[in-house]
Amino acid sequence: MQIIDLTMPIEDHFRWPVERKLTSDFAAGDDFQVTWMGWAVHGFTHIDAPRHMLPNGATTTDLHTHLEKVVGRTAVVDLSHVEPNMPITAEMMASAGAHIEPNGIVLLRTCWDVVVSPSTPEFWTTAPYMTREAAQWLLDRQIQTVGFDFPQDYPIRLLLKNERPKMSEMVTHDVLLRNGVTLIEYLCNLQELTTPFAQLVALPLKIMDADGAPARVIATKLQTR
Amino acid sequence: MQIIDLTMPIEDHFRWPVERKLTSDFAAGDDFQVTWMGWAVHGFTHIDAPRHMLPNGATTTDLHTHLEKVVGRTAVVDLSHVEPNMPITAEMMASAGAHIEPNGIVLLRTCWDVVVSPSTPEFWTTAPYMTREAAQWLLDRQIQTVGFDFPQDYPIRLLLKNERPKMSEMVTHDVLLRNGVTLIEYLCNLQELTTPFAQLVALPLKIMDADGAPARVIATKLQTR
Repeated sequence: MQIIDLTMPIEDHFRWPVERKLTSDFAAGDDFQVTWMGWAVHGFTHIDAPRHMLPNGATTTDLHTHLEKVVGRTAVVDLSHVEPNMPITAEMMASAGAHIEPNGIVLLRTCWDVVVSPSTPEFWTTAPYMTREAAQWLLDRQIQTVGFDFPQDYPIRLLLKNERPKMSEMVTHDVLLRNGVTLIEYLCNLQELTTPFAQLVALPLKIMDADGAPARVIATKLQTR
Repeated sequence: MQIIDLTMPIEDHFRWPVERKLTSDFAAGDDFQVTWMGWAVHGFTHIDAPRHMLPNGATTTDLHTHLEKVVGRTAVVDLSHVEPNMPITAEMMASAGAHIEPNGIVLLRTCWDVVVSPSTPEFWTTAPYMTREAAQWLLDRQIQTVGFDFPQDYPIRLLLKNERPKMSEMVTHDVLLRNGVTLIEYLCNLQELTTPFAQLVALPLKIMDADGAPARVIATKLQTR
């Protein structure tokens, strides 16, 4: 059973500064080394809680008691034929996602991180993106959770220009997260997940009462329906 | 398949201050909420890398490519009969751990967090602890990884008095971590894991080149050998 790691490394990144220091250090004569780190929980691979966009929305505390939302059988939707700046339509979703199961988990597999590195601005500014209709198509499938390996909302690219797009224009947030579908953002390495179904383990760090949590995400291939 | 969560919540704790703030805040007129958090990677449930005690030891980067060390079939060693301040001996390990498998993963289950809350000093200062011989007994079983639900090294209690015990007196670190056995520290909720074997998923956050990493740890019961 090969473990496939779908997680971005947490290290200094132009979108997300990471504060990092040693609070115990061999070089200072200490007998052991202790690293201290801090960053925004929406950087790198992470899971969004509804509180991210809704002042009274559920927080990570709710997610922590419903881990079956992010651990289990998953449909892998192959969209690896997408082109830069291509809108992903409801028709494309219907064509690639016929095997999605009700109450299930879904991973959208564009392999965009193989085309352009997430450490470059182009990964963010020239990515394919979800249309509102594609998000609605997913909502209509009554899924629990969806994960993305690309910056799935068009306005994410505006964040790089320090613009603050409205959350209502972030269509997967507005259509899916608002309606209780859990979002796993900024996955990578989906190119290794070549089967239509997988066993997903997406574990959020046990940060309480927050709008999101960094996650370690792994998967194994499932060979059969 | 019931998911059992073995992870301590990451929230302000007298041993580990957590820095936490909102970098985007509804109350400030922002359209979404973003939490920023920072803390020492050896606080709360976490995995140690050898670099914690060895200046040239392997870091978390090595662990990230060997996740089979922390994901898989696990022997649960029931030590829930221990008393406060009781040394856990090699004889006790041999009696409770006969089912440990070579190259396997082991969880030591004292259920100490049910007796005393980890949020109190007494959890740390009156805990049972591993003797050097018990650590050596585990090393001799050629295990890959061991997880603890109690402060397993006697001198951890000295840290609460701001003393700095020598790493060589931290017997599980000195005998096991030094010799390449991965340590999972500060688990909780083992009382729910009532079977001799379990399927463990202990996922370290993908922090690179560090001495340890916060982890989310879950398990499911395995009913048969």
